[in-house]
Amino acid sequence: MSTLTFEEAQQFRVGPNFQIEDVDPAATPGVNDVDTAFHAFDQELDSLQECLYANGRAGNEKAGSVLLVLQGMDTSGKGGIIRHVIGETMDLQGVHVHAFGRPTEEEAAHDFLWRITPHLPQPGQVSVFDRSHYEDVLVQRVRQMAPPEEIERRYGAIVDFENELAANGTKIIKVMPHISRAAQEKNLRKRIERPEKHWKYNPGDIDDRRLWSEFMAAYQIAMTRTSTDNAPWYCIPSDNKTYCRTVVKTLLVDAFRSLNLDWPAGDFDKDVELERLANS
Amino acid sequence: MSTLTFEEAQQFRVGPNFQIEDVDPAATPGVNDVDTAFHAFDQELDSLQECLYANGRAGNEKAGSVLLVLQGMDTSGKGGIIRHVIGETMDLQGVHVHAFGRPTEEEAAHDFLWRITPHLPQPGQVSVFDRSHYEDVLVQRVRQMAPPEEIERRYGAIVDFENELAANGTKIIKVMPHISRAAQEKNLRKRIERPEKHWKYNPGDIDDRRLWSEFMAAYQIAMTRTSTDNAPWYCIPSDNKTYCRTVVKTLLVDAFRSLNLDWPAGDFDKDVELERLANS
Repeated sequence: MSTLTFEEAQQFRVGPNFQIEDVDPAATPGVNDVDTAFHAFDQELDSLQECLYANGRAGNEKAGSVLLVLQGMDTSGKGGIIRHVIGETMDLQGVHVHAFGRPTEEEAAHDFLWRITPHLPQPGQVSVFDRSHYEDVLVQRVRQMAPPEEIERRYGAIVDFENELAANGTKIIKVMPHISRAAQEKNLRKRIERPEKHWKYNPGDIDDRRLWSEFMAAYQIAMTRTSTDNAPWYCIPSDNKTYCRTVVKTLLVDAFRSLNLDWPAGDFDKDVELERLANS
Repeated sequence: MSTLTFEEAQQFRVGPNFQIEDVDPAATPGVNDVDTAFHAFDQELDSLQECLYANGRAGNEKAGSVLLVLQGMDTSGKGGIIRHVIGETMDLQGVHVHAFGRPTEEEAAHDFLWRITPHLPQPGQVSVFDRSHYEDVLVQRVRQMAPPEEIERRYGAIVDFENELAANGTKIIKVMPHISRAAQEKNLRKRIERPEKHWKYNPGDIDDRRLWSEFMAAYQIAMTRTSTDNAPWYCIPSDNKTYCRTVVKTLLVDAFRSLNLDWPAGDFDKDVELERLANS
């Protein structure tokens, strides 16, 4: 119970019968010592990501890449995943993090996937999206910022887009850190009360909070429509943030392993180089 | 002796009388428990960098920024500084790391500072350079890749360039992790012998190693010519990598502190928002 297995992490995968209200945001199944479990895979993840990066640097076009999409309500723990799962374990040189905010005028003038493309991972790289192209079927649906038929079109466009990425060797993991309304209230209160957290607070957060059930319905639809073998969604309990991070780390290790990479062969003769070194 | 003070870190600053051969790469002055010292400032650095990032996000044009330049011989520990000092403590969303390799044809066709500019930090951001514009006065000098009068011109151009950055609010710290020739031999041997390190090895590394004293002379000149109040150089013993990282972390904390930032004020009325939250 101090390690979460790959199988246990898969219980959060969004399948055809997924119902968001079946996921208890406060649950921590499979783990009783979450602080230990969180670090169980550190060495392996470190090494796997370095190996991916090494393959990219060595020019292996088939190295593959990893894309982690984070999409959740305010204070659900997206930033903490980036900081603690990605930052503490991976080599920054192989990682690209991008936060997608409100589209700029130029971005809004293009198809919704246009602004995503420049941030996709190259071979050997990991990209992490803090919010993503799913904004265009979540907040845009809830706030009716696009006509229903356009929203409808986007689900299919996303599936096609992600299938194409997968065909080009990108392992895609999509995560909704799922917090309860009660936990969000506590988190927002901290942001309002503590000066060092003010910058994270926006009065609009309360407006979104008032539309909680509409957002949950939009997540339900978006995740069931776009959770595929190539790009599965995971709806992960996040009231206990370390638990959520542990699941994400486990999913990442599994994804990296499935790339099946070896260390790139050196482009040199070992004995010759040892001799040259000895004589240098 | 389990914390390195700001004053102790300053002993490595390159001043007008600096002689590179006076720096013992194996020394670890001021610290006897280096693993403890390395973590002494973690909480503060985390908080200071978040505060800088928060100011940037809040649109504070005077937030300032930080630029860490890393320039050293092969295996001197540049990558480890990025991984352990930057990655483990800072929020990736506020950090930009760029490795400068051999210039592309397009880059080589421009002035040597042209390729640097896009990677400079914006207000609120930290940029880390793994190698830098100093390549153009180090390897280019040693290997005579540019005429002497052009190399000569570059020292002045760099000082002007960095003064301009500083005038725009960028705190600049330039670090040469200084390893001994003997320590490099051990490190290179590992890279040749261990399959998981092959990707870091290039036979050209031995060619550079054979020019060790020429490189040291080039570092000596470059650092003394360009170490200014606005952009000081630090030549830091790096045979003990954790010691070197501890000094770099200490210098960073000092730099962040000198930005004198407060948490950005919230753009909202606290009581109103607490009321709205309670009613949401």
